[in-house]
Amino acid sequence: MPLTALEQQLNFLREIDRLKTVTRQSPLLDQSRKENSAEHSWHLAMYALLLNEYACAAVNTNRVMQMLLLHDIVEIDVGDFPIHAGLSGELQAKQEAEAAVRLFGLLPPQQGNELLALWQEFERAESEDAKFAKALDRFQPLLINVFTGGGTWAENNVSLEQVVSRYGPVIKRGAPQLWAVCEQWVVRHFAGQTTKS
Amino acid sequence: MPLTALEQQLNFLREIDRLKTVTRQSPLLDQSRKENSAEHSWHLAMYALLLNEYACAAVNTNRVMQMLLLHDIVEIDVGDFPIHAGLSGELQAKQEAEAAVRLFGLLPPQQGNELLALWQEFERAESEDAKFAKALDRFQPLLINVFTGGGTWAENNVSLEQVVSRYGPVIKRGAPQLWAVCEQWVVRHFAGQTTKS
Repeated sequence: MPLTALEQQLNFLREIDRLKTVTRQSPLLDQSRKENSAEHSWHLAMYALLLNEYACAAVNTNRVMQMLLLHDIVEIDVGDFPIHAGLSGELQAKQEAEAAVRLFGLLPPQQGNELLALWQEFERAESEDAKFAKALDRFQPLLINVFTGGGTWAENNVSLEQVVSRYGPVIKRGAPQLWAVCEQWVVRHFAGQTTKS
Repeated sequence: MPLTALEQQLNFLREIDRLKTVTRQSPLLDQSRKENSAEHSWHLAMYALLLNEYACAAVNTNRVMQMLLLHDIVEIDVGDFPIHAGLSGELQAKQEAEAAVRLFGLLPPQQGNELLALWQEFERAESEDAKFAKALDRFQPLLINVFTGGGTWAENNVSLEQVVSRYGPVIKRGAPQLWAVCEQWVVRHFAGQTTKS
Protein backbone atom coordinates (compact mmCIF):
# COMPACT_ATOMS: atom_id res chain seq x y z
CA MET A 1 0.00 0.00 0.00
CA PRO A 2 1.54 3.37 -0.93
CA LEU A 3 2.24 5.76 1.93
CA THR A 4 -0.21 8.58 2.56
CA ALA A 5 1.07 12.16 2.32
CA LEU A 6 1.06 12.39 6.11
CA GLU A 7 3.07 9.19 6.46
CA GLN A 8 5.65 10.54 4.02
CA GLN A 9 5.84 13.84 5.88
CA LEU A 10 6.26 12.12 9.24
CA ASN A 11 8.95 9.83 7.83
CA PHE A 12 10.84 12.93 6.67
CA LEU A 13 10.41 14.66 10.04
CA ARG A 14 11.71 11.57 11.82
CA GLU A 15 14.64 11.24 9.40
CA ILE A 16 15.81 14.80 9.97
CA ASP A 17 15.96 14.21 13.72
CA ARG A 18 19.45 12.95 12.85
CA LEU A 19 20.62 16.52 12.14
CA LYS A 20 20.79 16.88 15.93
CA THR A 21 23.68 14.38 15.94
CA VAL A 22 25.78 16.16 13.27
CA THR A 23 28.55 18.01 15.11
CA ARG A 24 29.99 21.24 13.74
CA GLN A 25 33.43 22.71 14.35
CA SER A 26 32.12 25.77 16.22
CA PRO A 27 31.65 25.66 19.99
CA LEU A 28 28.69 27.02 21.92
CA LEU A 29 29.39 30.50 23.25
CA ASP A 30 29.89 29.05 26.76
CA GLN A 31 32.41 26.60 25.21
CA SER A 32 30.82 23.64 27.01
CA ARG A 33 30.73 21.61 23.78
CA LYS A 34 30.60 21.83 19.98
CA GLU A 35 27.44 23.07 18.30
CA ASN A 36 25.26 20.66 16.31
CA SER A 37 23.73 21.46 12.94
CA ALA A 38 20.09 21.43 14.11
CA GLU A 39 20.57 24.06 16.83
CA HIS A 40 22.83 26.01 14.44
CA SER A 41 19.94 26.08 11.96
CA TRP A 42 17.56 27.32 14.66
CA HIS A 43 19.97 30.08 15.60
CA LEU A 44 20.41 31.16 11.98
CA ALA A 45 16.66 31.44 11.47
CA MET A 46 16.59 33.78 14.47
CA TYR A 47 19.48 35.77 12.94
CA ALA A 48 17.42 36.14 9.76
CA LEU A 49 14.34 37.23 11.68
CA LEU A 50 16.24 39.88 13.63
CA LEU A 51 18.83 41.15 11.18
CA ASN A 52 16.86 41.39 7.92
CA GLU A 53 17.29 45.18 7.86
CA TYR A 54 21.00 44.64 7.13
CA ALA A 55 20.45 42.59 3.97
CA CYS A 56 22.13 43.87 0.81
CA ALA A 57 18.73 44.29 -0.85
CA ALA A 58 15.05 43.85 0.00
CA VAL A 59 14.66 40.21 1.01
CA ASN A 60 11.71 37.99 1.85
CA THR A 61 12.60 37.24 5.46
CA ASN A 62 10.34 34.20 5.68
CA ARG A 63 11.96 32.60 2.63
CA VAL A 64 15.39 33.32 4.09
CA MET A 65 14.32 31.69 7.36
CA GLN A 66 13.00 28.64 5.53
CA MET A 67 16.25 28.33 3.56
CA LEU A 68 18.30 28.49 6.74
CA LEU A 69 16.13 25.95 8.54
CA LEU A 70 16.75 23.38 5.83
CA HIS A 71 20.13 24.41 4.39
CA ASP A 72 22.13 21.87 6.40
CA ILE A 73 19.90 18.80 6.33
CA VAL A 74 22.09 17.25 3.61
CA GLU A 75 24.68 16.83 6.37
CA ILE A 76 22.56 13.93 7.64
CA ASP A 77 24.05 11.96 4.75
CA VAL A 78 27.41 13.61 4.17
CA GLY A 79 28.40 15.30 7.44
CA ASP A 80 29.66 18.83 7.98
CA PHE A 81 32.43 20.07 5.65
CA PRO A 82 34.58 22.40 7.78
CA ILE A 83 35.47 25.70 6.14
CA HIS A 84 39.13 25.43 7.18
CA ALA A 85 39.70 21.81 6.07
CA GLY A 86 40.60 22.61 2.46
CA LEU A 87 38.40 19.86 0.99
CA SER A 88 37.25 19.65 -2.61
CA GLY A 89 34.32 21.98 -3.19
CA GLU A 90 33.25 19.98 -6.22
CA LEU A 91 33.06 16.65 -4.42
CA GLN A 92 31.19 18.28 -1.53
CA ALA A 93 28.67 19.89 -3.87
CA LYS A 94 28.03 16.60 -5.68
CA GLN A 95 27.50 14.62 -2.48
CA GLU A 96 25.25 17.27 -0.99
CA ALA A 97 23.15 17.51 -4.14
CA GLU A 98 22.58 13.73 -4.02
CA ALA A 99 21.67 13.91 -0.34
CA ALA A 100 19.14 16.66 -1.04
CA VAL A 101 17.45 14.56 -3.71
CA ARG A 102 17.24 11.57 -1.36
CA LEU A 103 15.98 13.51 1.65
CA PHE A 104 13.43 15.77 -0.02
CA GLY A 105 12.42 12.72 -2.05
CA LEU A 106 10.92 11.28 1.14
CA LEU A 107 8.18 13.93 0.97
CA PRO A 108 5.05 14.06 -1.20
CA PRO A 109 6.36 15.07 -4.67
CA GLN A 110 5.08 18.64 -4.85
CA GLN A 111 6.21 19.56 -1.36
CA GLY A 112 9.54 17.79 -1.82
CA ASN A 113 10.21 19.58 -5.11
CA GLU A 114 9.44 22.97 -3.59
CA LEU A 115 11.87 22.44 -0.73
CA LEU A 116 14.52 20.96 -3.04
CA ALA A 117 14.23 24.08 -5.22
CA LEU A 118 14.63 26.29 -2.15
CA TRP A 119 17.72 24.32 -1.05
CA GLN A 120 19.19 24.59 -4.57
CA GLU A 121 18.51 28.33 -4.62
CA PHE A 122 20.47 28.65 -1.37
CA GLU A 123 23.35 26.65 -2.81
CA ARG A 124 23.49 28.74 -6.01
CA ALA A 125 23.71 31.92 -3.89
CA GLU A 126 22.45 34.12 -6.70
CA SER A 127 19.07 35.44 -5.52
CA GLU A 128 18.95 38.24 -2.97
CA ASP A 129 17.34 35.89 -0.44
CA ALA A 130 20.07 33.31 -0.92
CA LYS A 131 22.89 35.86 -0.77
CA PHE A 132 21.60 37.12 2.58
CA ALA A 133 21.11 33.57 3.90
CA LYS A 134 24.67 32.65 2.87
CA ALA A 135 26.00 35.79 4.55
CA LEU A 136 24.34 34.86 7.86
CA ASP A 137 25.61 31.29 7.61
CA ARG A 138 29.14 32.73 7.46
CA PHE A 139 28.51 35.55 9.98
CA GLN A 140 27.30 33.35 12.84
CA PRO A 141 30.45 31.16 13.14
CA LEU A 142 32.63 34.27 12.80
CA LEU A 143 30.78 35.84 15.72
CA ILE A 144 31.25 32.64 17.73
CA ASN A 145 34.99 32.59 17.06
CA VAL A 146 35.41 36.22 18.05
CA PHE A 147 33.43 35.79 21.28
CA THR A 148 35.15 32.56 22.31
CA GLY A 149 38.68 33.92 21.98
CA GLY A 150 39.43 32.29 18.63
CA GLY A 151 37.36 29.10 18.40
CA THR A 152 38.07 27.23 15.17
CA TRP A 153 40.65 29.82 14.07
CA ALA A 154 42.89 29.08 17.02
CA GLU A 155 42.44 25.31 16.48
CA ASN A 156 43.40 25.58 12.81
CA ASN A 157 46.07 28.31 12.98
CA VAL A 158 43.99 30.54 10.74
CA SER A 159 45.47 33.99 10.02
CA LEU A 160 43.76 37.35 9.77
CA GLU A 161 44.23 37.26 6.00
CA GLN A 162 42.61 33.83 5.78
CA VAL A 163 39.63 34.99 7.86
CA VAL A 164 39.18 37.99 5.61
CA SER A 165 39.38 35.90 2.43
CA ARG A 166 37.21 32.97 3.65
CA TYR A 167 34.43 34.95 5.32
CA GLY A 168 34.66 38.43 3.83
CA PRO A 169 33.33 38.05 0.28
CA VAL A 170 30.23 36.06 1.29
CA ILE A 171 29.27 38.28 4.23
CA LYS A 172 30.06 41.51 2.38
CA ARG A 173 27.99 40.43 -0.63
CA GLY A 174 24.87 39.59 1.36
CA ALA A 175 25.12 41.94 4.34
CA PRO A 176 27.76 44.67 3.91
CA GLN A 177 26.89 46.40 7.20
CA LEU A 178 27.50 43.18 9.10
CA TRP A 179 30.86 42.76 7.40
CA ALA A 180 31.86 46.25 8.53
CA VAL A 181 31.32 45.09 12.13
CA CYS A 182 33.18 41.86 11.46
CA GLU A 183 36.21 43.74 10.17
CA GLN A 184 36.47 45.67 13.42
CA TRP A 185 36.11 42.48 15.49
CA VAL A 186 38.64 40.57 13.42
CA VAL A 187 41.29 43.27 13.48
CA ARG A 188 40.85 43.62 17.23
CA HIS A 189 40.93 39.84 17.68
CA PHE A 190 44.18 39.35 15.79
CA ALA A 191 45.72 42.27 17.64
CA GLY A 192 45.24 40.16 20.75
CA GLN A 193 42.36 42.07 22.28
CA THR A 194 39.31 40.28 23.67
CA THR A 195 35.90 41.25 22.31
CA LYS A 196 33.29 41.53 25.04
CA SER A 197 30.49 43.43 23.38
CA MET B 1 26.95 55.70 25.06
CA PRO B 2 23.66 53.94 24.27
CA LEU B 3 23.88 50.73 22.27
CA THR B 4 23.10 50.86 18.57
CA ALA B 5 20.21 48.76 17.26
CA LEU B 6 22.68 46.25 15.83
CA GLU B 7 24.53 45.96 19.14
CA GLN B 8 21.21 45.26 20.91
CA GLN B 9 20.28 42.65 18.32
CA LEU B 10 23.64 40.92 18.58
CA ASN B 11 23.45 40.94 22.38
CA PHE B 12 20.09 39.19 22.11
CA LEU B 13 21.39 36.66 19.58
CA ARG B 14 24.34 35.88 21.85
CA GLU B 15 22.08 35.60 24.92
CA ILE B 16 19.78 33.06 23.27
CA ASP B 17 22.75 30.80 22.49
CA ARG B 18 22.03 29.52 26.00
CA LEU B 19 18.85 27.80 24.79
CA LYS B 20 21.20 25.13 23.40
CA THR B 21 22.08 24.20 26.99
CA VAL B 22 18.49 23.78 28.23
CA THR B 23 17.79 20.06 28.36
CA ARG B 24 14.30 18.70 27.78
CA GLN B 25 12.81 15.45 29.01
CA SER B 26 12.42 13.92 25.55
CA PRO B 27 15.25 11.90 24.02
CA LEU B 28 16.49 12.12 20.44
CA LEU B 29 14.90 9.43 18.28
CA ASP B 30 18.18 7.44 18.37
CA GLN B 31 18.04 7.71 22.18
CA SER B 32 21.71 8.78 22.35
CA ARG B 33 20.85 11.69 24.67
CA LYS B 34 18.07 14.10 25.72
CA GLU B 35 16.93 16.80 23.31
CA ASN B 36 17.74 20.45 23.99
CA SER B 37 15.28 23.30 23.55
CA ALA B 38 17.10 24.98 20.63
CA GLU B 39 17.10 21.91 18.40
CA HIS B 40 13.53 21.15 19.55
CA SER B 41 12.54 24.63 18.31
CA TRP B 42 14.25 24.00 14.97
CA HIS B 43 12.41 20.73 14.59
CA LEU B 44 9.05 22.31 15.43
CA ALA B 45 9.53 25.03 12.81
CA MET B 46 10.08 22.23 10.27
CA TYR B 47 6.91 20.50 11.52
CA ALA B 48 4.99 23.74 10.92
CA LEU B 49 6.45 24.15 7.44
CA LEU B 50 5.53 20.60 6.42
CA LEU B 51 2.27 19.93 8.25
CA ASN B 52 0.38 23.22 7.83
CA GLU B 53 -2.30 21.48 5.75
CA TYR B 54 -3.46 19.68 8.92
CA ALA B 55 -4.13 22.86 10.90
CA CYS B 56 -7.62 23.25 12.31
CA ALA B 57 -8.15 26.40 10.24
CA ALA B 58 -6.28 28.48 7.69
CA VAL B 59 -3.06 29.54 9.37
CA ASN B 60 -0.18 31.83 8.44
CA THR B 61 2.59 29.24 8.32
CA ASN B 62 5.37 31.80 8.60
CA ARG B 63 3.88 33.29 11.77
CA VAL B 64 3.48 29.79 13.20
CA MET B 65 7.13 29.08 12.40
CA GLN B 66 8.25 32.31 14.04
CA MET B 67 6.21 31.52 17.16
CA LEU B 68 7.76 28.09 17.41
CA LEU B 69 11.29 29.37 16.90
CA LEU B 70 10.95 31.70 19.88
CA HIS B 71 8.34 29.94 22.05
CA ASP B 72 10.89 28.35 24.38
CA ILE B 73 13.49 31.08 24.81
CA VAL B 74 12.03 31.95 28.22
CA GLU B 75 13.54 28.63 29.36
CA ILE B 76 16.91 30.38 29.31
CA ASP B 77 15.82 32.01 32.56
CA VAL B 78 13.41 29.49 34.05
CA GLY B 79 14.29 26.09 32.54
CA ASP B 80 11.98 23.52 31.01
CA PHE B 81 8.80 22.67 32.93
CA PRO B 82 8.15 18.97 32.24
CA ILE B 83 4.56 18.13 31.33
CA HIS B 84 4.48 15.14 33.69
CA ALA B 85 5.96 16.86 36.75
CA GLY B 86 2.68 18.25 38.07
CA LEU B 87 4.08 21.71 38.78
CA SER B 88 2.02 24.83 39.35
CA GLY B 89 0.86 26.24 36.02
CA GLU B 90 0.36 29.65 37.57
CA LEU B 91 3.90 29.96 38.93
CA GLN B 92 5.31 28.75 35.64
CA ALA B 93 3.29 31.27 33.64
CA LYS B 94 4.40 34.14 35.90
CA GLN B 95 8.09 33.24 35.72
CA GLU B 96 7.97 32.75 31.97
CA ALA B 97 6.20 36.07 31.41
CA GLU B 98 8.93 37.86 33.36
CA ALA B 99 11.62 36.06 31.40
CA ALA B 100 9.99 37.10 28.11
CA VAL B 101 9.99 40.74 29.18
CA ARG B 102 13.67 40.57 30.14
CA LEU B 103 14.82 38.73 27.03
CA PHE B 104 12.83 40.59 24.38
CA GLY B 105 13.72 43.78 26.27
CA LEU B 106 17.30 43.31 25.09
CA LEU B 107 16.16 44.18 21.56
CA PRO B 108 15.41 47.59 20.03
CA PRO B 109 11.97 48.53 21.45
CA GLN B 110 9.81 48.10 18.36
CA GLN B 111 11.34 44.76 17.40
CA GLY B 112 11.29 43.54 20.98
CA ASN B 113 7.64 44.48 21.41
CA GLU B 114 6.64 42.68 18.22
CA LEU B 115 8.33 39.47 19.29
CA LEU B 116 6.99 39.75 22.84
CA ALA B 117 3.47 40.10 21.40
CA LEU B 118 4.04 37.01 19.25
CA TRP B 119 5.26 35.05 22.26
CA GLN B 120 2.24 36.20 24.31
CA GLU B 121 -0.09 35.20 21.48
CA PHE B 122 1.43 31.72 21.55
CA GLU B 123 0.98 31.50 25.31
CA ARG B 124 -2.66 32.60 25.15
CA ALA B 125 -3.36 29.88 22.56
CA GLU B 126 -6.46 31.63 21.25
CA SER B 127 -5.60 32.62 17.66
CA GLU B 128 -5.66 29.97 14.93
CA ASP B 129 -1.89 30.35 14.45
CA ALA B 130 -1.24 29.87 18.16
CA LYS B 131 -3.60 26.89 18.44
CA PHE B 132 -1.78 25.14 15.63
CA ALA B 133 1.65 26.02 17.08
CA LYS B 134 0.59 24.66 20.49
CA ALA B 135 -0.70 21.47 18.86
CA LEU B 136 2.66 20.86 17.17
CA ASP B 137 4.52 21.57 20.41
CA ARG B 138 2.49 18.76 22.00
CA PHE B 139 2.55 16.47 18.93
CA GLN B 140 6.34 16.31 18.52
CA PRO B 141 7.14 14.88 22.00
CA LEU B 142 4.25 12.43 21.67
CA LEU B 143 5.74 11.20 18.39
CA ILE B 144 9.14 10.86 20.07
CA ASN B 145 7.68 8.82 22.93
CA VAL B 146 5.85 6.49 20.58
CA PHE B 147 8.91 5.92 18.39
CA THR B 148 11.31 5.38 21.29
CA GLY B 149 9.23 2.72 22.99
CA GLY B 150 7.78 4.98 25.66
CA GLY B 151 10.30 7.75 26.35
CA THR B 152 9.11 10.07 29.11
CA TRP B 153 5.93 8.03 29.62
CA ALA B 154 7.87 4.96 30.65
CA GLU B 155 10.12 7.05 32.93
CA ASN B 156 7.13 8.67 34.67
CA ASN B 157 4.71 5.71 34.73
CA VAL B 158 2.23 7.63 32.62
CA SER B 159 -0.95 5.75 31.71
CA LEU B 160 -2.93 5.73 28.47
CA GLU B 161 -5.60 7.84 30.13
CA GLN B 162 -3.02 10.41 31.25
CA VAL B 163 -1.56 10.63 27.76
CA VAL B 164 -5.00 11.17 26.28
CA SER B 165 -5.87 13.87 28.83
CA ARG B 166 -2.49 15.69 28.76
CA TYR B 167 -1.89 15.71 25.00
CA GLY B 168 -5.30 15.14 23.45
CA PRO B 169 -7.14 18.44 23.97
CA VAL B 170 -4.29 20.64 22.73
CA ILE B 171 -3.47 18.52 19.67
CA LYS B 172 -7.10 17.92 18.78
CA ARG B 173 -7.92 21.61 19.05
CA GLY B 174 -5.13 22.75 16.75
CA ALA B 175 -4.70 19.78 14.42
CA PRO B 176 -7.52 17.23 14.68
CA GLN B 177 -6.18 15.04 11.87
CA LEU B 178 -2.86 14.68 13.69
CA TRP B 179 -4.68 13.69 16.87
CA ALA B 180 -6.48 10.94 14.96
CA VAL B 181 -3.06 9.46 14.11
CA CYS B 182 -1.87 9.92 17.70
CA GLU B 183 -4.87 7.99 19.03
CA GLN B 184 -3.94 4.99 16.89
CA TRP B 185 -0.29 5.18 17.98
CA VAL B 186 -1.14 5.57 21.64
CA VAL B 187 -3.62 2.70 21.75
CA ARG B 188 -1.10 0.48 19.97
CA HIS B 189 1.69 1.62 22.27
CA PHE B 190 -0.17 0.86 25.48
CA ALA B 191 -1.25 -2.50 24.06
CA GLY B 192 2.47 -3.30 24.02
CA GLN B 193 3.02 -3.12 20.30
CA THR B 194 6.01 -1.30 18.84
CA THR B 195 5.32 1.47 16.31
CA LYS B 196 7.73 1.36 13.38
CA SER B 197 6.05 3.55 10.79
